[in-house]
Amino acid sequence: MSANRPQARAPRGFQDRLGSAIAAEAELIHRASSAYEKWGFQRLDTSAFEFTESLGKFLPDKDRPNEGVFSLQDDDDQWMSLRYDLTAPLARYVAENRQVLGKPFRRWQAGPVWRNEKPGPGRFRQFTQCDADSVGVPGPAADAEIIMLACDALEASGIQRGEYNLKINTRRALNAVLAQVSSIGSESEAERNGTIQRAIDKLDRLGIEGVTALLGEGRLDESGDFTKGAGLDAASIDRVIAFVSAGQSDNDATVIALEKAVGNTDAGSEALREIKAITSIMERCGYGGDRAAIDPSIVRGRDYYTGPVFEAELTMRKPNGKPIGVGSVGGGGRYDDLIARFTGETMPATGFSIGVSRLITALEAAGRPILGEAIGPALILVFDKDDMGDYFELAQRLRAKDIPAEVYLGGSGMKAQMKYADRRNCPVAIMFGSDEKDKGIVSIKDLRVGKKKAQAIKDNETWREERPGQFEASLDTFETAVADAIAAEV
Amino acid sequence: MSANRPQARAPRGFQDRLGSAIAAEAELIHRASSAYEKWGFQRLDTSAFEFTESLGKFLPDKDRPNEGVFSLQDDDDQWMSLRYDLTAPLARYVAENRQVLGKPFRRWQAGPVWRNEKPGPGRFRQFTQCDADSVGVPGPAADAEIIMLACDALEASGIQRGEYNLKINTRRALNAVLAQVSSIGSESEAERNGTIQRAIDKLDRLGIEGVTALLGEGRLDESGDFTKGAGLDAASIDRVIAFVSAGQSDNDATVIALEKAVGNTDAGSEALREIKAITSIMERCGYGGDRAAIDPSIVRGRDYYTGPVFEAELTMRKPNGKPIGVGSVGGGGRYDDLIARFTGETMPATGFSIGVSRLITALEAAGRPILGEAIGPALILVFDKDDMGDYFELAQRLRAKDIPAEVYLGGSGMKAQMKYADRRNCPVAIMFGSDEKDKGIVSIKDLRVGKKKAQAIKDNETWREERPGQFEASLDTFETAVADAIAAEV
Repeated sequence: MSANRPQARAPRGFQDRLGSAIAAEAELIHRASSAYEKWGFQRLDTSAFEFTESLGKFLPDKDRPNEGVFSLQDDDDQWMSLRYDLTAPLARYVAENRQVLGKPFRRWQAGPVWRNEKPGPGRFRQFTQCDADSVGVPGPAADAEIIMLACDALEASGIQRGEYNLKINTRRALNAVLAQVSSIGSESEAERNGTIQRAIDKLDRLGIEGVTALLGEGRLDESGDFTKGAGLDAASIDRVIAFVSAGQSDNDATVIALEKAVGNTDAGSEALREIKAITSIMERCGYGGDRAAIDPSIVRGRDYYTGPVFEAELTMRKPNGKPIGVGSVGGGGRYDDLIARFTGETMPATGFSIGVSRLITALEAAGRPILGEAIGPALILVFDKDDMGDYFELAQRLRAKDIPAEVYLGGSGMKAQMKYADRRNCPVAIMFGSDEKDKGIVSIKDLRVGKKKAQAIKDNETWREERPGQFEASLDTFETAVADAIAAEV
Repeated sequence: MSANRPQARAPRGFQDRLGSAIAAEAELIHRASSAYEKWGFQRLDTSAFEFTESLGKFLPDKDRPNEGVFSLQDDDDQWMSLRYDLTAPLARYVAENRQVLGKPFRRWQAGPVWRNEKPGPGRFRQFTQCDADSVGVPGPAADAEIIMLACDALEASGIQRGEYNLKINTRRALNAVLAQVSSIGSESEAERNGTIQRAIDKLDRLGIEGVTALLGEGRLDESGDFTKGAGLDAASIDRVIAFVSAGQSDNDATVIALEKAVGNTDAGSEALREIKAITSIMERCGYGGDRAAIDPSIVRGRDYYTGPVFEAELTMRKPNGKPIGVGSVGGGGRYDDLIARFTGETMPATGFSIGVSRLITALEAAGRPILGEAIGPALILVFDKDDMGDYFELAQRLRAKDIPAEVYLGGSGMKAQMKYADRRNCPVAIMFGSDEKDKGIVSIKDLRVGKKKAQAIKDNETWREERPGQFEASLDTFETAVADAIAAEV
């Protein structure tokens, strides 16, 4: 018998969430999406599955559809995959419905995405994203809009101004620099530029010295592993380092520093014009460098970005003053070529994605959880099974006054009932035993007052005599007394 | 190039939902779960995947894990499946966490489930359920609670009292009857009883005559297909038909009719005591036969039910008086043996599941959609690209007053902008051209007034002169004028 019994466990890397954990996620999505809706973005929902071929560029390895994504074959042998992010389904949706949607099409979407990766602590194979994207509009106004929207979504989520930095860069500026560097290695230019981008992406972690090594011959890490570098010559390394270090305390100063670092080429001037156009719209709307600052070291991993890229960093701290230690909580950029994969026609697009779980983790680390402690229902205690109808009626009367209420159905004695009330964090316990019945009253125990006093009263006998937090109410109007007890500050 | 282009389409049986379609689902879950929370149920979220062996009894064919469910092998070759319903994950979760959860454990959960079945019109391979289950409590009080909760959830969802019927039955009553019938066929008793249950389940569709045939030798349908029957003898058929027809206009009368139909056996008396205990608690709380009526013809498909079973039927009608033609919108029952699959120990449980999409379809069919028409943002029209900063600033001022607003970024002329406003159902268009700028005003076009008047004014010239619904507001205070226009009844 036992040999046939399956073990009760969730597959590796997938999590169950109870009560406030899942409620916090729902609340965060509600807050962020309220900002999206206020900017006129429409909600879209797509299903979990896409054809694997639709994911295309998103697949880490297109020859092995199970690498990175969860894939299976449908009845007709076509490969389907669970979505890896919310951008690929959007690209497919827009391409499929482009005749009816019209332009611009601005949508937000929130929901789970799946990654078939090795799970680790805090690293799950299903997690939640909350995205906003604008399709059909080229040029800086749409990018500025997405960046301002991202700022609003973070602030609506409970991150104060000054506690975050929406970093902005453009791929075009880096490309203009890369067109002017020379390398000694044998890699193709595309491979070399990829190596350079990955090196810059590690600036936070490795510092200027580490990145310098990775731009040159390579870097030996602490574990003794050698990472081959991009093979740039010394002047080129200086040029790239000067570029990524060009960020200044305000956006105008950064643009001036960038003009020097990017060099006087058409591509460089074009890139700076783009980023200046974005920041000037934003300044006009009150989104200055204190909220969204140009940071030339921002690269973003995906290679489908074609212009501006964004990344949201939190600068808030733990209650003890230390950094919260949560990396980027969101990012995005412009991806003008992605929808063309389906249609063959360029369709400009730009967007931003919030990592919901990361943002919740960050707020918790800062001692500012999205939701306070979950409060349980008023618990009606059970003295006599024959009076179940009475108990249910009391609970029903509370619910009619919008007070969550529950009759204890566990079938155990008073001690177990109080333990249950404690586990569920019930604010009050309602007693309607034979005494109360005879007197036409209800006894109400304010469990939070009780808990507080329990710290002061150590003596068991005193406790029983004083019955801290316990009081009586008329049966006719007990709902009001319960409501008052729950609403009262303890 | 084009040969490499993937076709832009969602896999068969999966749907995209935009705007009010997905918002209606979120709103329905919010409403139903408010009822769940008011009864003290906690929210739980589990991930999409379970080990296939955990699904066990839920699998239509355990030798072929891809029949009925979507399954794939993990890196370590273990089969995982996307959840088929929300009950199997609950059973796994409770078994996995039984030491810390304590009893009772009452949870609600809402989310997508996946079925690897042939899709059809209105029949999708991913759809949403919203469940409430109570684990750890045997006996009628927990069942009564779930049924009352189901009534509350339906009413919170917008179904009026009198527009639904929560049908109640118990498997034990039918089993008591089946213990007293005799058949001629060669099937095992379990197989025969399964055939009888499936026959009863078709009462709605086939009527007494059709069910009688299926209880006997079998039935030839219109298409000429023959369905083999249960092979009951004539007296046994009468007995079963008498049982399923025992429903009366009130619950007390049904119990009396059932006493005769079930026969005087211990099992029969026990079954009736159970159902009487449930209805008596419910009566006490005001849930009479007008909301939840005993209906002996209710079977419920799943074979894991061990006692009471429930099914929610809507009796509401279309605006033209015809039936809405939506079957059951929810159901459930007691399943005391399901968690024991993992633990070997009986763990009583009872629950109810709402089919979210069906309920939305039903409300729409009745002419009472969950959400009214989606209203778009206030649209700021673009006259001169050089004034983009002005337009963005106007939009920003509206958002600061909680008015959703959007600057048209489509880059097209006035006609395209008005078409866009129409498609998004924008309530107002805001104009700030050079005239307005000079005069320090904003022109506001109430698009709903405009639409209404357009039906009256047929003459193009009159239209242009009168500019119906268009008015001016001071630039300093235009937000108030916009808010008033949006709030006004048209």
